[in-house]
Amino acid sequence: GRYGCIGVVLFHLSGGAVDMIDGIADAAEERGFALTMIKKRAGEKMTLAEAARRMSQLPVDGMIFNLRQMVDDFDTFEAPKDLKTVIITPMEHPTCSTVSDDQEDGARMACEYFLNRGHKNVYFVSGKKESLSSQCRMKGWRAALETRGIEPPEPLQGDWNADSGYAAGLVLADKPDCTAVLAANDCMANGVMMALRDKGLSVPDDVSVIGFDDELYKTIPNSILTSVKFRHRELGIRALNEVVAGLEAPSSRSRTLVSGVLIERSSVKDLRA
Amino acid sequence: GRYGCIGVVLFHLSGGAVDMIDGIADAAEERGFALTMIKKRAGEKMTLAEAARRMSQLPVDGMIFNLRQMVDDFDTFEAPKDLKTVIITPMEHPTCSTVSDDQEDGARMACEYFLNRGHKNVYFVSGKKESLSSQCRMKGWRAALETRGIEPPEPLQGDWNADSGYAAGLVLADKPDCTAVLAANDCMANGVMMALRDKGLSVPDDVSVIGFDDELYKTIPNSILTSVKFRHRELGIRALNEVVAGLEAPSSRSRTLVSGVLIERSSVKDLRA
Repeated sequence: GRYGCIGVVLFHLSGGAVDMIDGIADAAEERGFALTMIKKRAGEKMTLAEAARRMSQLPVDGMIFNLRQMVDDFDTFEAPKDLKTVIITPMEHPTCSTVSDDQEDGARMACEYFLNRGHKNVYFVSGKKESLSSQCRMKGWRAALETRGIEPPEPLQGDWNADSGYAAGLVLADKPDCTAVLAANDCMANGVMMALRDKGLSVPDDVSVIGFDDELYKTIPNSILTSVKFRHRELGIRALNEVVAGLEAPSSRSRTLVSGVLIERSSVKDLRA
Repeated sequence: GRYGCIGVVLFHLSGGAVDMIDGIADAAEERGFALTMIKKRAGEKMTLAEAARRMSQLPVDGMIFNLRQMVDDFDTFEAPKDLKTVIITPMEHPTCSTVSDDQEDGARMACEYFLNRGHKNVYFVSGKKESLSSQCRMKGWRAALETRGIEPPEPLQGDWNADSGYAAGLVLADKPDCTAVLAANDCMANGVMMALRDKGLSVPDDVSVIGFDDELYKTIPNSILTSVKFRHRELGIRALNEVVAGLEAPSSRSRTLVSGVLIERSSVKDLRA
């Protein structure tokens, strides 16, 4: 690189962002690059074109956009020809390389885990509507059920926090066919579990639950929650390496999906037993 | 500034780091500065001198060090004369400006809150030994008790996670004089509360609890935990503004403490009632 520096544009800072930045920074260090960072301001509607324009004025060799919600010009954006651009987003982009956690596959793994243990259907509690992570997790859940010829039940709308999971859990407790719940994060999964218990149901004896992000053990002693964990640090490393690899050929394009892992505890009952 | 750029060195990324980076980045944007970031690598023992040396080679006008644990050359470090340096740390530095959450005062607030409601003593569950936040919270707790002529009981060692809080809670449940517990974060506070309940005690009727960071409500529905909350975004803004203010006079020195707030819920019983 001419400047020895990679630009990072933070459109949204969400859970896991610290580990992702950590991975980007470690990989940059390893490859001998500094990082220059700019951030969308709260309330500002920054487009990809505007972010690219601002980065072009700085001494950077390439850039990474961290994009967790949709922006208006996503489909039409064209990166500057001399500036390799990698977008961290679950969506495929027509001209830029993208790197993402494999959210859909994570949801599929969780559903398969339920179905392979005799559950006939899986209910879903979503995160915030505008979140791409929530959208992808829902898409993976729906696809996993449909692949097996199962009609997905109506998803329940949450907002990532425990209270919304609790509200969803109260609704699910009244559904006699509900034996399995996939919540789009661990906080809502905990809310679901507490609502089920308050309704006199046992997890996992009456209802099985899986979450995402594997972080409940930090807050709940002896946590039993099985959860899909993504490797945010690895995501950051991949994004940085993808930019560096593309410095010589900015017009190349790739899509990298970093798979998650199912951390198995004891919140799922095997109904075949 | 000559380069229009401020350097940020991340020695440690911990809880609240995302909000702090958010504040630094927003303030930089506001003042017309870009950010250049470097990070200590895992396992690497970076000194302040080494960080300053690396930053000096980059086109930056000033720099911020985010330092949450002690480093070997903290007391002897002298910042480059032409590079205004602000350290985010609760410790005072002989030559550099520092910015910090007022951790000691937060612990004092929590203790006063207990004592003003008729509690005769306050037990303390600490975070990891090497954490400056934990050390400062413990120092504030100890000072608040001693100011009132109360002998502080032996603190219980935790590690920030819920399981260590649970272990501490089991010990505290057997102490008949324990009516009030200050845990150095919300996760451990939750562990303490669950252990007390498992031992047949009620929070707050038998034992009152206060945590730090005000984040339990994200994970626990209808959370009752009173907690000391720090404003990490404000911390980042102050650090950036301090660097920019010092660009004209790098040798000036200040100490900024950003106060926390006690978020009152219902985990503390008023014993005077």
